[in-house]
Amino acid sequence: MLYDVVIIGAGPSGLSAAIYASRAKLKTLIIEKKWCGGKMATIGLLENYPGFYDEISGHDLSIKFEKHAVKFGAKLVYDEVKKIDNNTIKKIITVNSNYNTKSIIIATGTSIRKTNILGEEIFIGKGVSFCATCDAPFYKDKTVLVIGGGDSAIQESIYLSKFAKNVIIIHRRNKLRATSILQKRITLYSNIFILYNYLVKEILGKNTVEKVIIENIKTHKKKEMKIDGVFIFVGQIPNTSFVTNITLSSNQYIITDNDMNTSVSGIFACGDVREKLLKQIIISASDGAVAAIGAQNYIELCS
Amino acid sequence: MLYDVVIIGAGPSGLSAAIYASRAKLKTLIIEKKWCGGKMATIGLLENYPGFYDEISGHDLSIKFEKHAVKFGAKLVYDEVKKIDNNTIKKIITVNSNYNTKSIIIATGTSIRKTNILGEEIFIGKGVSFCATCDAPFYKDKTVLVIGGGDSAIQESIYLSKFAKNVIIIHRRNKLRATSILQKRITLYSNIFILYNYLVKEILGKNTVEKVIIENIKTHKKKEMKIDGVFIFVGQIPNTSFVTNITLSSNQYIITDNDMNTSVSGIFACGDVREKLLKQIIISASDGAVAAIGAQNYIELCS
Repeated sequence: MLYDVVIIGAGPSGLSAAIYASRAKLKTLIIEKKWCGGKMATIGLLENYPGFYDEISGHDLSIKFEKHAVKFGAKLVYDEVKKIDNNTIKKIITVNSNYNTKSIIIATGTSIRKTNILGEEIFIGKGVSFCATCDAPFYKDKTVLVIGGGDSAIQESIYLSKFAKNVIIIHRRNKLRATSILQKRITLYSNIFILYNYLVKEILGKNTVEKVIIENIKTHKKKEMKIDGVFIFVGQIPNTSFVTNITLSSNQYIITDNDMNTSVSGIFACGDVREKLLKQIIISASDGAVAAIGAQNYIELCS
Repeated sequence: MLYDVVIIGAGPSGLSAAIYASRAKLKTLIIEKKWCGGKMATIGLLENYPGFYDEISGHDLSIKFEKHAVKFGAKLVYDEVKKIDNNTIKKIITVNSNYNTKSIIIATGTSIRKTNILGEEIFIGKGVSFCATCDAPFYKDKTVLVIGGGDSAIQESIYLSKFAKNVIIIHRRNKLRATSILQKRITLYSNIFILYNYLVKEILGKNTVEKVIIENIKTHKKKEMKIDGVFIFVGQIPNTSFVTNITLSSNQYIITDNDMNTSVSGIFACGDVREKLLKQIIISASDGAVAAIGAQNYIELCS
């Protein structure tokens, strides 16, 4: 069996690519390691995917994307890709099988770097968030804690400050890692506070987050802090460990052009796994459509 | 009244920009000349906007986008922009009013160049289409007529040929305008036929398209041809007649970078009005989100 296109990853970009590819009558396979929707599926409430004006959960939107992707004949398997062999006919080696294909779309996204703080896992979607643009409006006039000290922690704190009553950034070091322009800008916001030399030991609450236990890294004294939400911005890890011979950025993201071409002809990348500035579901869905149209043109030119 | 951002045009890119801008608490105004949804609103059935796996009409999706855009406080007015004055505070002059704003997003799209063939207007969405990617799957095993002779007419005919039984391209000249590589490629498709030196005089049918009257431009002889659909690809016209002092392409499209910046600081463009290759609703919606985030950053840096 020779596929026209194998899509690795079933997040919004991979599923969008599958919709476009299968609707264009390409023989399409999607290989997903964990679950459909990727990070999107873990978002409690989504307010900014255009068209869904009623709040929708990331889980429900993921199901809609999945149904849409398989509607036109794309096949979905749960498996883990170990390696890509790049010949004229490309071969994908997974844990359970091998697949031959004319083209490949990599849409494996990123994994959120977690803190492993006690309670983090339990309260995801219930007060623990990894996305201010997604969740800030739910914290109107509340107090939120931000964990992190890099650019994204600062940018997301500024965004949060427009909604929350108070934003407290907690950072284990005695200075931020963020660029100086962002460090300067943050001083303009009277409701953003920075707590240096502290780390969060535990996140606590009944049904949702209610408080955290923090510890001074010098004195090791602990104290309790009442907050309504915890936003964690300690980085993301692109899922590219199986990728060889494709040009990556220094941070291990896949470098593409605007048409989602990677450095290897016939291999495309889309969504959060590619090197780009903005990470939003609508942008990933667009990326996926562009990649699928690219794969379609590639196959047509080569056959 | 000083707006943070005025969005000109309420198609998918403009409305998406409005969702993102207003949700980020920017004081947002949308100015639309005709109707919400733009060209999207005229599409009979939409199958490829990710997330809507049940067929949805372009009209219904437009209403969802509109509701979404105004949900977070964006104001929508129906008016026609005549001119933009670009000072530190930008001024938009419309037929009925003036608006002051810190930033502008141009999302005016394109107008489809029509043929003015008798019946064209009547059968739009009922057998007359301007988009193969949108409508080809509805013509499985049917015979369709394509009007046009440029690159897009050929590309869309190839797409159509995968669904339709027969694709007949009708062209008034004795050779196509399309690039030679496309002219060569089209010969590979056994179900695409080209009818030179003919023009369509009238499109006829009861509820949907059933036949056309065609005329030989040399002999002026007319004849009837039974077909199931007419696809018209005679070009698009970007809606930029009110634009001055912003760099346009030779075809009058607005040139932007990947962040939707135009040549004028604080003025962004998104969707089909900008110079780009692919025109799809999902891509326009993504463009709009990017433009709104750009406007947000611009305002923050300038204030």
